[in-house]
Amino acid sequence: MKNVAVILSGCGFLDGAEITEAISTLIAIGQNGASYRVFAPNKEVDEVNHLTQKSTVQKRNALQEAARIARGDIQPLEKLKAQDFDALAFPGGFGAALHLCDFAKQGSGGQIDPEVARIVKEFSGSGKPIAAICIAPAIMALALGDKGVNVTIGEDAGTASELEKTGAKHQNCAVEKYVVDHSNKVITTPAYMYGTAKPHQIFEGVSGAIRELIKMAS
Amino acid sequence: MKNVAVILSGCGFLDGAEITEAISTLIAIGQNGASYRVFAPNKEVDEVNHLTQKSTVQKRNALQEAARIARGDIQPLEKLKAQDFDALAFPGGFGAALHLCDFAKQGSGGQIDPEVARIVKEFSGSGKPIAAICIAPAIMALALGDKGVNVTIGEDAGTASELEKTGAKHQNCAVEKYVVDHSNKVITTPAYMYGTAKPHQIFEGVSGAIRELIKMAS
Repeated sequence: MKNVAVILSGCGFLDGAEITEAISTLIAIGQNGASYRVFAPNKEVDEVNHLTQKSTVQKRNALQEAARIARGDIQPLEKLKAQDFDALAFPGGFGAALHLCDFAKQGSGGQIDPEVARIVKEFSGSGKPIAAICIAPAIMALALGDKGVNVTIGEDAGTASELEKTGAKHQNCAVEKYVVDHSNKVITTPAYMYGTAKPHQIFEGVSGAIRELIKMAS
Repeated sequence: MKNVAVILSGCGFLDGAEITEAISTLIAIGQNGASYRVFAPNKEVDEVNHLTQKSTVQKRNALQEAARIARGDIQPLEKLKAQDFDALAFPGGFGAALHLCDFAKQGSGGQIDPEVARIVKEFSGSGKPIAAICIAPAIMALALGDKGVNVTIGEDAGTASELEKTGAKHQNCAVEKYVVDHSNKVITTPAYMYGTAKPHQIFEGVSGAIRELIKMAS
């Protein structure tokens, strides 16, 4: 049975992982006969009230919040070793661009969280495929831009152009579809980069991307 | 297009709505060609740390937390009128038995939250179907036990026996299946009452229950 590492960044699209994308990922992994383990960064992050969509003065712990999605079965990023897995998946949400890298604030000049950078390097270096959803392809661009990685974040021209400054190539893509970079073994799907998409459309795009991810995992 | 009201109780299975069940419900509604609106009680509830699975001394607001699942597009229960919808769905999680009724603490002697009681009465009284997932069938037993409503919470004998004290009838059911009470128009599926089930199994059971719910909505 192929085993997929899933990296979350909290619980809620404004300050953590996008929940529909995260759950779609976990459902699709099982539907494709694979198993998974969930990981998240053990760091305090700024909380956003999802009712008012405004920042609060509080902090939340990304690992503790992601545990809500993972039903407590989760570990910090330090425990993730590529040798234990066949593939890696990054659901999106602003958390991916705030806590896993700082693309949300620094754009193409941004940095990847050191643990995330180590993990991507381990998977990519050993030829294991990576799926990135929504804005998480920004991590792929920051990590593999120098290799001209081919990614999608949908059709937002401003974000696409910022991503391409890393050397990455952007390809427009519908919400139900996904983009495959065979040479870099990277699969991306736009998901809630289409903000008015419906959950079943998110599921269709994520489901296709995860099927391809597991097929590509040797 | 049929329109389904979905009632959440927070965000996270230990102190709110079970996230995989909630998202599976929203995905399945769209896959069956229906639309939805999400609601939750506007009340302060006890917070549980999902990493340690222990209570904290903090409170969270169930509506504000459920907004994470609904991406901010959510309203308090007071705004839910059965006349605007064709069907009603209750994802589970302990929140359903703590905040929507008090079955978790009072068992068959428990009470339903007054707004939830009004809503169930409106839907049931106008012949509109209701789906209840995981432990949420306890709400159906408390509301419709006197009508001998037929429900499932899986195969936990203790919980089943407690439910039956209301007059409800319990039927054992596998995680991927669901139980239909045609005369009361109530559909139930056990979901994470099987604590070790996988997300794709939860999706299969919830998906079947929601397909039946929408078929039953006239």
